Amino acid sequence: MTERLVVIGGDAAGMSAASQARRHRGPGELEIVAFERGNRTSYSACGIPYWLGGVVDDAERLIARSPEQHRRRGIDVRMRTEVTEIDLDRRRVRSRDLERGDTAWTEFDHLVIATGAVPVRPPLPGIDASNVHGVQTLDDGEAVLRSLAGNPRRAVVVGAGYIGVEMAEALLRRGLEVTVLERAPQPMTTLDPDMGALVREAMTEFGIQVVNGAAVTELRTDGDGRATTVLTSDGSEYPADIVVLGLGSRPNTALAEAAGLPLGESGGLLTDVSMRVRGTEGVWAGGDCVEVLNLVSGATQHIPLGTHANKHGQVIGANVGGGYATFPGVVGTAISKVCDLEIGRTGLLEEEARAVGFRFVTATIESTSRAGYYPPTAPMTVKVLAELRTGRLLGVQIVGRENAGKRVDIGAVALTAGMTVEQMTGLDLGYAPPFSPVWDPVLLAARRATRAVAEDMRANG
Amino acid sequence: MTERLVVIGGDAAGMSAASQARRHRGPGELEIVAFERGNRTSYSACGIPYWLGGVVDDAERLIARSPEQHRRRGIDVRMRTEVTEIDLDRRRVRSRDLERGDTAWTEFDHLVIATGAVPVRPPLPGIDASNVHGVQTLDDGEAVLRSLAGNPRRAVVVGAGYIGVEMAEALLRRGLEVTVLERAPQPMTTLDPDMGALVREAMTEFGIQVVNGAAVTELRTDGDGRATTVLTSDGSEYPADIVVLGLGSRPNTALAEAAGLPLGESGGLLTDVSMRVRGTEGVWAGGDCVEVLNLVSGATQHIPLGTHANKHGQVIGANVGGGYATFPGVVGTAISKVCDLEIGRTGLLEEEARAVGFRFVTATIESTSRAGYYPPTAPMTVKVLAELRTGRLLGVQIVGRENAGKRVDIGAVALTAGMTVEQMTGLDLGYAPPFSPVWDPVLLAARRATRAVAEDMRANG
Repeated sequence: MTERLVVIGGDAAGMSAASQARRHRGPGELEIVAFERGNRTSYSACGIPYWLGGVVDDAERLIARSPEQHRRRGIDVRMRTEVTEIDLDRRRVRSRDLERGDTAWTEFDHLVIATGAVPVRPPLPGIDASNVHGVQTLDDGEAVLRSLAGNPRRAVVVGAGYIGVEMAEALLRRGLEVTVLERAPQPMTTLDPDMGALVREAMTEFGIQVVNGAAVTELRTDGDGRATTVLTSDGSEYPADIVVLGLGSRPNTALAEAAGLPLGESGGLLTDVSMRVRGTEGVWAGGDCVEVLNLVSGATQHIPLGTHANKHGQVIGANVGGGYATFPGVVGTAISKVCDLEIGRTGLLEEEARAVGFRFVTATIESTSRAGYYPPTAPMTVKVLAELRTGRLLGVQIVGRENAGKRVDIGAVALTAGMTVEQMTGLDLGYAPPFSPVWDPVLLAARRATRAVAEDMRANG
Repeated sequence: MTERLVVIGGDAAGMSAASQARRHRGPGELEIVAFERGNRTSYSACGIPYWLGGVVDDAERLIARSPEQHRRRGIDVRMRTEVTEIDLDRRRVRSRDLERGDTAWTEFDHLVIATGAVPVRPPLPGIDASNVHGVQTLDDGEAVLRSLAGNPRRAVVVGAGYIGVEMAEALLRRGLEVTVLERAPQPMTTLDPDMGALVREAMTEFGIQVVNGAAVTELRTDGDGRATTVLTSDGSEYPADIVVLGLGSRPNTALAEAAGLPLGESGGLLTDVSMRVRGTEGVWAGGDCVEVLNLVSGATQHIPLGTHANKHGQVIGANVGGGYATFPGVVGTAISKVCDLEIGRTGLLEEEARAVGFRFVTATIESTSRAGYYPPTAPMTVKVLAELRTGRLLGVQIVGRENAGKRVDIGAVALTAGMTVEQMTGLDLGYAPPFSPVWDPVLLAARRATRAVAEDMRANG
């Protein structure tokens, strides 16, 4: 008998799940219906800042697979159709066609919830002005481009996380004067403050004005409903012709919550290792609407990231398709760049490690991404956290130039394997002068951390 | 009572050991005497091709620490002094001052043998011609520069291993017509033939003539004792104004062998995990004169590489200094580049895996080092070997452009941790469009290999 898979959300997690399930089971065995309330499927939201900055010339390039391409693979994609209710008892979802307004019930054997995240948009006066933009969807991006077409001179970016710093670069590339307002004492709160300070320094050097400790209280607008000035709690005013919001996002789980599905502290859906929603049969969830297990902290958390969403989709699709796959969890890896500054992290920050009860040493080293004599030598700073006594690696943070960022992968694999920093010092990493000093900077930091663990043992053992 | 550490060989392994031992024990506790038969200490031989290619402007930049700098740290460096005998019974070495010719015995409590490797130089007619060069030492490099000063037009490089391809790039940068002659069917026998073929393709594209299956039989010389033509066994003749040899090297262990110390199949010294020569007390060895344990094959092998030498030195120095450190072994990681082609490998090649009894599947994928839409997208090919049934990772090979090579580090850590390719598919690697597609190419290859393992099980399980 043909089963039916219903997918809510036509982006990375949902459509990967659909595609993978289709690979396992043909249309005679499994009917697949995917509901997407927007106009597009399977596109790279992470690419939007690069499109807006002019690095990627066309938004079409960000689309991995169109609705039509999915349909050709036997996936019944219903665009501009919003799921408004999940009825778990009768195993069906109610959807509404946003064009025609009519609603319908669709029964499912398997359900994939891939509703993504919604950007944080605080209810400040003026936040709905026409030149205040989020950058989560391609439609957001098009709105930014329309604002840019008016030749704005001054941009204010609110928030200095990944999207904030990437948008700062994009606007700088467009020739604007860019000010970034961040509530925290440093940009990139995904780094420890000492590492975040290096990012601020570099951004300033690139010509971006970075204001920390700046909580936005209001956006003053003109008669045309356009924001003209951003006000912060200390009474400062920042003139702006365009405002971009980079304040992070929250799991989009109102629908799941209404259906009584279990949510974690962040509001993300809770799943087991097979990406099945906890306590259900045949209800799966993945992507930006779930919480993932952090293998280092042992806690679940919300990490909206395309690479996780794709893995979730693959796992769900394999399981729905009758195969077996699991998502083991994450170690908190993230990389980004601002102009030519590369920023990477994996594992836990100091504050995160303390919060779950770890005690640790830290070691920070400065080195170069190539042999010191091989120009251009690019500086990089690596910080390592290691647990007291055991010396287990808890985290790696990197701020540097060319070839710095992806080195967090070394830490990511070592964290996954539960290595100690001393074990890391013996790692056989690729060495040649154009690629690395004879001691890779990550190993150098691991050596320093190994020494710090020993010194702590001697002092407090 | 003051002990004495004697070091034979003033380069990476020897001087790292000396420096590290000095950090642990001051001059009142430990006297350190280092013998070096050449003119320099602690320099980066791996940097020589980049100096000769003009990337590094001055050979001085390759010198990490001069004899004088070592002396200031309390290491009695005896330059141009060759150790001619190790007397293990009376725990002393005999040395000869190469300037004055006089010899002396020096007693030791600890001995470090760091005599390095000697380049392979087959006894072919003409091989001692004045314009035929090895590139192992700075003196070799100076001889190459002298030949280059005569404005040669055509260069022949014999051997297409790391040194061979790096020197091909260097000579190309100097404006010469470059021909590389390699006995094997492909350049880079450190890769599987299918991956080596990609290197040949790229080298040809860069304007380097690569001739495979070409065994050199003779170098024809003119009346001035200069090589003019390189002859190969198939009767071909390659005119040459300069010839560079890149035929690999052998452990330099005649001295150790004469003292009755244990050597492996390659002629390298055999040590235990503390880098102590097997069966001895207080005799240590490291760097290019030892064999290292390959953690994947379970066998020892000769891998002359500066990064291993430095680690050996650190381990020896810590142990001599009264601390405790071990060198766990290698996984066979190596990277290099020719022009903008990056080449990386870790673990075992097909032939190596078969030779030690593994049966395996392979998976090869083509991807890009950034998101496909983020220009410039650079292609890369990743090949993965995974053991049958267990799916254990056995090796990773990468050939690609910018940001390809160092990705072998992911494989190197995974090999060290004994991960399966299926475990690798869950790795939380750094993702952002400027750095990686949403599936890192290494993960993509691991996924493909996971599928191949399963297919083999289904077929042959």
